[in-house]
Amino acid sequence: MPRVSDAHKAARHSQVLNAARACFARRGYQATTIRDLERETGMSSGAIFNYFDTKLDIFVALAEEDTAHTARLWSAGGLRAIVEHHTGAQPAYTASYLEVGRQLLTDPDFRARWARRGDLIVEAIRNHLRTQQEQGLVRTDLPLDDLVTYSAIHLDGITLQMRLGTTPTQLVTAVDLYEQALRPPPTSPPA
Amino acid sequence: MPRVSDAHKAARHSQVLNAARACFARRGYQATTIRDLERETGMSSGAIFNYFDTKLDIFVALAEEDTAHTARLWSAGGLRAIVEHHTGAQPAYTASYLEVGRQLLTDPDFRARWARRGDLIVEAIRNHLRTQQEQGLVRTDLPLDDLVTYSAIHLDGITLQMRLGTTPTQLVTAVDLYEQALRPPPTSPPA
Repeated sequence: MPRVSDAHKAARHSQVLNAARACFARRGYQATTIRDLERETGMSSGAIFNYFDTKLDIFVALAEEDTAHTARLWSAGGLRAIVEHHTGAQPAYTASYLEVGRQLLTDPDFRARWARRGDLIVEAIRNHLRTQQEQGLVRTDLPLDDLVTYSAIHLDGITLQMRLGTTPTQLVTAVDLYEQALRPPPTSPPA
Repeated sequence: MPRVSDAHKAARHSQVLNAARACFARRGYQATTIRDLERETGMSSGAIFNYFDTKLDIFVALAEEDTAHTARLWSAGGLRAIVEHHTGAQPAYTASYLEVGRQLLTDPDFRARWARRGDLIVEAIRNHLRTQQEQGLVRTDLPLDDLVTYSAIHLDGITLQMRLGTTPTQLVTAVDLYEQALRPPPTSPPA
């Protein structure tokens, strides 16, 4: 019965990710040991590394989950939805992002995987902006790529600010200004 | 003659910083050894650490130089001046910024010094925006603090993008949009 086995695998996979998320939030990425992960999952290291090759792979998988979540939020409501989401739930473990910076410099494989995460978000931004253009909500007088870049800059800057302690309520007007610059200019004819 | 001695000290201080900048650019922060710094400066480690307590202190001093430079650029020409500056000179060593992320998490003293750097830039942004408001170039219908936050988000996002390889020419329209959102709204009475 391969279906049961697949469901079992998926459950174990999630179990490792959730345990790692808790450990990284509590102790940070570098200080989390394999022993910590064994204790938190209740699984042996052998079982854990049946699902992931290294601790870094677990970290990247978590980052990929978050990326997918961010992309979904953006698709649903743009930058505003992301800021509003963080009002409720600060994902404490993402401070660990700061710990893997060195890997970005020294590990080309890691850099490539990290960049691919970004591509997923860029696609979500692009599709969302295109839909909003079709609805007449976003300007069409500038190249779409430039609007995507402007949006990605804003997402990166806001994410960094929230990670360093700026509260979402302090960001409301910045999001208003971001959106305002994307609106069709008043002089342009209606679509 | 204290003047000569002070000038000598200042020259040695700069010598260490310039050497460290070259080493960090070439090998990264973590891989740079005290021996590398001795070789590059032509000074003994004892002489080097007469000026700085640790390698991290040298790094922070470099970051503080850059911060002061960024603040001066912003004062002179806003976000646009910063992007234009990077068109000529990509400060390769700043990739090392990614390497000290862990210190931000684990070292409260470091975090406090790092945050103070940010304060200097925030002040430059605030003063520049206030001057532009007085000249009628920037809107006055929103709290200045919110305009500063919007600007800081943009600076952080653009800096990150440039560090990960986006070229300044790809950022021109984003800077236009950033500035556009700050302009006085067309319906507001002239100042």
